[in-house]
Formats: sequence, C-alpha cells, structure tokens
Amino acid sequence: MLADAARPIALKYFRGAGLGVDNKLTEGFDPVTIADREIELEMRDILARHRPDDAIHGEEFGPKTGTSGLTWVLDPIDGTRSFISGTPTWGVLIAVGPSAGPELGIIDQPFTGERYIGAFGHANVTHQGETRPIAVRDCPDLSDAILFSTFPEVGTEQERHAFERVRDQAKLTRYGTDCYAYALLASGQIDLIIEAGLNAYDIQGPLALIQQAGGIVTNWQGGPAHEGGQVIAAGDPAVHRTALALLAD
Amino acid sequence: MLADAARPIALKYFRGAGLGVDNKLTEGFDPVTIADREIELEMRDILARHRPDDAIHGEEFGPKTGTSGLTWVLDPIDGTRSFISGTPTWGVLIAVGPSAGPELGIIDQPFTGERYIGAFGHANVTHQGETRPIAVRDCPDLSDAILFSTFPEVGTEQERHAFERVRDQAKLTRYGTDCYAYALLASGQIDLIIEAGLNAYDIQGPLALIQQAGGIVTNWQGGPAHEGGQVIAAGDPAVHRTALALLAD
Repeated sequence: MLADAARPIALKYFRGAGLGVDNKLTEGFDPVTIADREIELEMRDILARHRPDDAIHGEEFGPKTGTSGLTWVLDPIDGTRSFISGTPTWGVLIAVGPSAGPELGIIDQPFTGERYIGAFGHANVTHQGETRPIAVRDCPDLSDAILFSTFPEVGTEQERHAFERVRDQAKLTRYGTDCYAYALLASGQIDLIIEAGLNAYDIQGPLALIQQAGGIVTNWQGGPAHEGGQVIAAGDPAVHRTALALLAD
Repeated sequence: MLADAARPIALKYFRGAGLGVDNKLTEGFDPVTIADREIELEMRDILARHRPDDAIHGEEFGPKTGTSGLTWVLDPIDGTRSFISGTPTWGVLIAVGPSAGPELGIIDQPFTGERYIGAFGHANVTHQGETRPIAVRDCPDLSDAILFSTFPEVGTEQERHAFERVRDQAKLTRYGTDCYAYALLASGQIDLIIEAGLNAYDIQGPLALIQQAGGIVTNWQGGPAHEGGQVIAAGDPAVHRTALALLAD
C-alpha cells in the first residue's frame, strides 16, 4: 500500500520539468526533491490510519515514536542523484521490524515497474503483472564476482582504499546504481555490494530484502548493518568472508 | 524493424541463467554475449532482404561493403557490462547514413521499453505505446551541468586527468550508464557526456540521435566523432565550448 501510494507521486516528478531540487547540506551535493517529501507525507498519512501504534523513521521528516515495538523505516526516493539525472536506478525503500532489525524489506522502482519484496523467509519480484520468486546466487570466489558500489562518490579516502582492495580482485565493478544494486543482488544478478556512509533508511529495506532472499548484509566488521555506516552485502557467504578480510587489511 | 527484431532476442538473454559470456580480448574484460551475436545476425538478415545494396558495419561480424553509399552501423548490445549485471542501461544501437556521418540514430532499451529515434531533423521517444518529441536542454554553465561518463572504466591515465578537469567543475557526475546516458542527454535530462576509446559502432547511433535532438557531438578537438575515439556530447553549445577548453588544457 505504501509502495502503491509512492509510485504515481514519484512518476509525476521523475524526468519532469517542474522538479525542484534543494541542497539539503550546505557542503556537497545531496539533492532532495519535492517528490521525496510528498511521498513520505503520503506514507506517514497511510501509517497513521492503519498502523497508528508503530514507530516511523523516515528520511525527510525524522522519527515518530510508537508503542507496538515495530518501526517503519522509509526512504521515499533513494538515489536522488539518479532520480534527477533521469536514470531508472533509484527506488522507494520500505522496511519494518523490531529494533533488532527489519524483517520485511521492499525496493520499488516505479519507472521500470519492478517491485522487490522480502518477508517471512521468501523474496520475490513483481514486474508487468507477473510475480516470481528470487534468490541470491552462489559465487564463492571473488575473482568471479560482480561488485557494485557508489564509490568514488561516497566514503573517506581510507574507506575508498579498503574498497579498492576488494575491487582489484573482483571480476567486474560497476558504479552509481544506488539501491537498484541491492535488488540485483537479491535476484542473483550480481554478487557483492560495498558501501560506506549509509543512513539507516538507506539500508534497512535492501537489507531485509537480501536476507529474505538468502544473502548476507553486515557492516565491514561482520556485525549488524541496519543502523547504516559501512555496509557489505553478498549472496555467497564465502565471498562475503573474502571481502571482509580484504576490507580489514 | 531492426530494433523490433532485436528486442525479443535481447530480453530472452537479459537476466537469463543460460547467458554465455566469452572474453573477446585476452587482456581486460570485454564480455560479448550470445545475444549480441544472435541479434546482429538477425539484423544482417533483415538488411540483406530489404537493403541489399547498403554497406554494414556491425560490432560482431565486421564490415560488409555496399554500392548505395549508405552504411548501417550496428551495435546489437552496447553496454555488455550493464547487460551481464542486470542493469537496464544497455541498449541496441542502430545508425545509418553516408560516409560523412550518420543521419538516423536509434537507442532502444528493451527492458524499460524505451525507443529513442532521431532522423530528418526530429527526435522522439516511444515508451508504453506513447510517442513524444524530445530535445536537448539549455545549460550554458558547466557549474550547472550533469555530466555522465564511463570513466574510470575506460581511457588512458592522461584522458582520465583531462576528464577530471571537467568533472571537478560540473554540478554532478555519474558513471557507468553506457549508451543510456546519450538517450538522457537527447531528452534533456542531463547536459554533458565525456568518453574515450569508443568504436564507431558505439557512437554513431547516439551521435545521430543527439544531433537530431539539437545537441552537439564531437571529438575532444571539436572535430567529427563518428569514427569513435574520444567523444564529447553536449546539449548546449556554451557548455560544450567550456568543456572542450578544459579537456585541451
């Protein structure tokens, strides 16, 4: 319902001439669009009606406390750089779960019409009215792995060097695909994602989706990643171990 | 007709489990897929029936001479790295024209269902059955420009430094979007593309599309770009001049 509400709003502004872009930070480039805010307000309105006792953590309008023990984590448009460039690799991210971490995750891409959902031990994608199960793929060797990242756009110099140690051993590295990369990993198209400087709302939807699709998402020390920061996601536990060791070197 | 023939073949192999990937070069990673070859054979078959006197320059099967003065330039799947990663930013590229340069250009993205065509002084996109005109947008100042590139994946170190001089003054730079970036430039979503190491079949479809949409495509010296090599594409002549000067520094 939340993702359904987001789609028409996102598409109204995607590639539109009337797109307003503010700079959220005075330093650097972190565009936030009218669409971002309009979608989150709509989602909060739906949650207020249907899940009034749940907490909310949204990108645009901050935390709302709850009493049910469940928190909805919302990123109305993840990948605003893609969004303002017309590239269909941004997404609407939704997660919900207890404080230990999200148990349901959604990545929705309104322009391509793909919706990736992971929950209750299953993951699937719906595209053009057809729903099919998805799962991560085996890829034990880093030398066979396709790696995605938003480096060099994000992260410190030290983080970039750590990332490059992994990149130098991967088969193929691709950049700038935002949350769409997590959908590709969950559906067994790619093998590894390495990121830094994430917020909780950037990672919780993708994290839950990938876990339900059989993959692993941790921080660079192998611990929980749902609070954001440095994140590594893998389809195969062996390639996850190899990459963790290289990041720690 | 050529793009129609390509779509079902491309989609049969995109994200498919049976995708065969060879290494075309012994050095580096230049994957070429079964889909690439199957599409080009199909296109050549159509041209043999309908345009037997035209020349053909295809990525996979080389040149075929002709007597009409027209050459079809075909890249069945441009962006094979995107293709094998599941990212919908690869495309089918088609161009036709005299030896002075192509006068019709097509970028087709089968998964999103977008077809960008430029010819006879017009350019348009067809998506979900709807066709609308497209044009480049004004953006005289580099500091307002959105720049796309396949650096750092391609080019020499010297070329990368030249690219970085432009990048450092652009508003936003995005990487790894392959031929889809040219469709975004032709439709006024982005402002500048800088590339190196291109082949004629990589650039002729995008070049003709952008020219018909009102933009400029040259080499880094401001000369013709249809033979490939170093390429710069811009929507606005002023930002093109600024970027050329920085590349030459």
